[in-house]
Amino acid sequence: MIMNSDTFMFHGCDVAALAAKYGTPLYLVSEDEIRKRCAEIKRDFTDKYDNTRAAYASKAFQTLEMIRIIKSEGLSLDVVSGGEIYAAVKAGFDPADMVFHGNSKTAGEIGEALDAGVGTIVVDNLSELELMDQMARDRNMKQEVLFRVTPGVDSHTHQYISTGQADSKFGFSTEETVETAVPEALKMEGIDLKGVHFHVGSQLLENTSHIMAVEIIIKMLEDLKDKYGWTAREINCGGGFGVHYAGDPSRTKISDFVDPVMKRIEEAYNRCGDPRPMVTIEPGRWIIAEAGITVYEVGSVKTNAAGRVYAGVDGGFPDNPRTELYNASYEVEAVEKLKLPHTVKTTVAGKCCESGDIVAYDVMLPPLERGDHLAVLATGAYNYSMSSNYNRIGRPPVVMLKDGKDRLTVKRETYEDMLRNEM
Amino acid sequence: MIMNSDTFMFHGCDVAALAAKYGTPLYLVSEDEIRKRCAEIKRDFTDKYDNTRAAYASKAFQTLEMIRIIKSEGLSLDVVSGGEIYAAVKAGFDPADMVFHGNSKTAGEIGEALDAGVGTIVVDNLSELELMDQMARDRNMKQEVLFRVTPGVDSHTHQYISTGQADSKFGFSTEETVETAVPEALKMEGIDLKGVHFHVGSQLLENTSHIMAVEIIIKMLEDLKDKYGWTAREINCGGGFGVHYAGDPSRTKISDFVDPVMKRIEEAYNRCGDPRPMVTIEPGRWIIAEAGITVYEVGSVKTNAAGRVYAGVDGGFPDNPRTELYNASYEVEAVEKLKLPHTVKTTVAGKCCESGDIVAYDVMLPPLERGDHLAVLATGAYNYSMSSNYNRIGRPPVVMLKDGKDRLTVKRETYEDMLRNEM
Repeated sequence: MIMNSDTFMFHGCDVAALAAKYGTPLYLVSEDEIRKRCAEIKRDFTDKYDNTRAAYASKAFQTLEMIRIIKSEGLSLDVVSGGEIYAAVKAGFDPADMVFHGNSKTAGEIGEALDAGVGTIVVDNLSELELMDQMARDRNMKQEVLFRVTPGVDSHTHQYISTGQADSKFGFSTEETVETAVPEALKMEGIDLKGVHFHVGSQLLENTSHIMAVEIIIKMLEDLKDKYGWTAREINCGGGFGVHYAGDPSRTKISDFVDPVMKRIEEAYNRCGDPRPMVTIEPGRWIIAEAGITVYEVGSVKTNAAGRVYAGVDGGFPDNPRTELYNASYEVEAVEKLKLPHTVKTTVAGKCCESGDIVAYDVMLPPLERGDHLAVLATGAYNYSMSSNYNRIGRPPVVMLKDGKDRLTVKRETYEDMLRNEM
Repeated sequence: MIMNSDTFMFHGCDVAALAAKYGTPLYLVSEDEIRKRCAEIKRDFTDKYDNTRAAYASKAFQTLEMIRIIKSEGLSLDVVSGGEIYAAVKAGFDPADMVFHGNSKTAGEIGEALDAGVGTIVVDNLSELELMDQMARDRNMKQEVLFRVTPGVDSHTHQYISTGQADSKFGFSTEETVETAVPEALKMEGIDLKGVHFHVGSQLLENTSHIMAVEIIIKMLEDLKDKYGWTAREINCGGGFGVHYAGDPSRTKISDFVDPVMKRIEEAYNRCGDPRPMVTIEPGRWIIAEAGITVYEVGSVKTNAAGRVYAGVDGGFPDNPRTELYNASYEVEAVEKLKLPHTVKTTVAGKCCESGDIVAYDVMLPPLERGDHLAVLATGAYNYSMSSNYNRIGRPPVVMLKDGKDRLTVKRETYEDMLRNEM
């Protein structure tokens, strides 16, 4: 982020000018930043360690153009629904490089994944395993699968986004994996059990959970070899690598997570002499969150009876439900007033008829007035992808920025668009 | 709701048959129930008391067909955005009968409302008042407005949906109304100040807040008459009338709220001898919540390591964010297994790759298996209207039920629909 003028610049682009060109609210996404993050992943993980791969967790932000960028960077793609597979195929992504997740895949989606040739399906539970075996056999296929294993690590993050704990809707326990799931899978003609997947939580700023989890997984894989002679060809360590939001320290480095994890995996396989399985990671938020900002126009500014200053903007919950959903905190820049003293504690209020629709609480900003623009930082992940039409507000357009140039990649949703499926 | 067979019937319709016909997830909405609720409003409020009206708060559930039903019942319409005004006009609703709300209306929306001829605009703050006056004068109009007043009543409900407290993003304090807003408005050529609006919270199961608020408002109106000789022609008491969700007592009666409120207003105007202003209420959830259910198909059923039974369904957060957003609780019916013993404490899990995507925690249900259907009750309000495409899951269709017959009113969103605005 470079600030070379009196107004806010984002990756070399004049945010006020873009707000005038495209209107507000507006999602701006820096392709340069995305590619920089992909380069760090290559340098510190996939190029540094043999037999590794990174799959972009596209649920964080999945547009056709984003899929094309991920493809051109050579990453694999983590998808979580038939809709995500459909979009990825449409964007030209090779299904063989997709990893299909989900705790409750429908039979329809499993059929779509098998028919498209999705390379890896992560199986969540026994019922799904049996269905997938049957459906693969019906197609004379043998599907490569990983088991989602819940290592029972509590990742000390917001409960809604911690997933490695024992009481989770996701995956098999290690005991179930060893006692039931693996021996069952090894008997199945439609299933090629390739390895295991775990995911310990989201937005983690330290690597403790990943390290604890991989140690449990290594131990489990040793048990599985002892018991059944089965050796994994892939260990997928999921994602969860934290980024910088308001109040957090700087973003984590990929090496902070992968180095200690790789050390433990390599030591274990050096000990036993077996070839080390492929190791996969699944960064989503880490690639896209800080690459995106949202630009709003300020409408009314007022001080309420409790003395709180509110600046109402032209978006909110529909384009960013994270503040209300997770008590998420965001940094806010006053686009045209960067250099003015930030003297007013301001609550940026969304426009929905809902008290909880607040974009950011108590941010220090210059005095604002109608027509000013605000840029909310690090909204690239789980904003567009979680957006709604609550209060019949159309989704903002997505404008990509590259080398100081802007291009529209998703059009603004119109009033008429929102009525398209009405009879 | 009538249960006359071994499978779950909703307003005379066989839910299993509708799931087979339309697929799942599926929103079912009973037109009979909506009209029954409107009839109660007429009997106990608009027909019982002269010079009253009820405006349906359409943000709870706004489809073209719903607007047509509300029109045919003779209610007014509460709208909260340019998009809601657009849809209502398209459905044939007379703008003169609309009430336009919002804490952060854009200049564009105010222009759309003025040009469409929206009958009543509820002004939230001074900055908006000035803008509206200017825009009305530019059009040689005098716009009828109400002031949104925040009476400082704490409504003891979930903080996200209580709006009458002093520290709110909404409205004017009573002091600001008296000292500043009213005298300003009375000088404005573009503004016809018709009255005041208050809203004390949502999903209220007792009438205390409404009564406290109306007493404060009456006192404020007396002050305004003393100070400026101005008398209100409308008092809009908002909504907030509670319905039955899991764990709550039975739904409230409209009379529980309006009778004590009308008593206080009528007594005050009898005392002073002025004609009583029109009294308006704005029920949204109360009309539509229990008229709607969501039908899911069960996929995998499993018991996790912590001993919790999970039934994964084919929807969740994208069609109903309320469980994650508000810790909302829902009743769940096992459509084909109504008569079996409900012996298993089951958590109904949504299909999103997100730990918080749970439809209902710890509901007693019969043993479930893949292919069973579940009906989640009282999802008519703030489900379809808050729905998203998170995980690229298309929105379910909306099927209306009347006299035992079903008709599709909103089509299911397809994979292709979700990519329509992509470049």
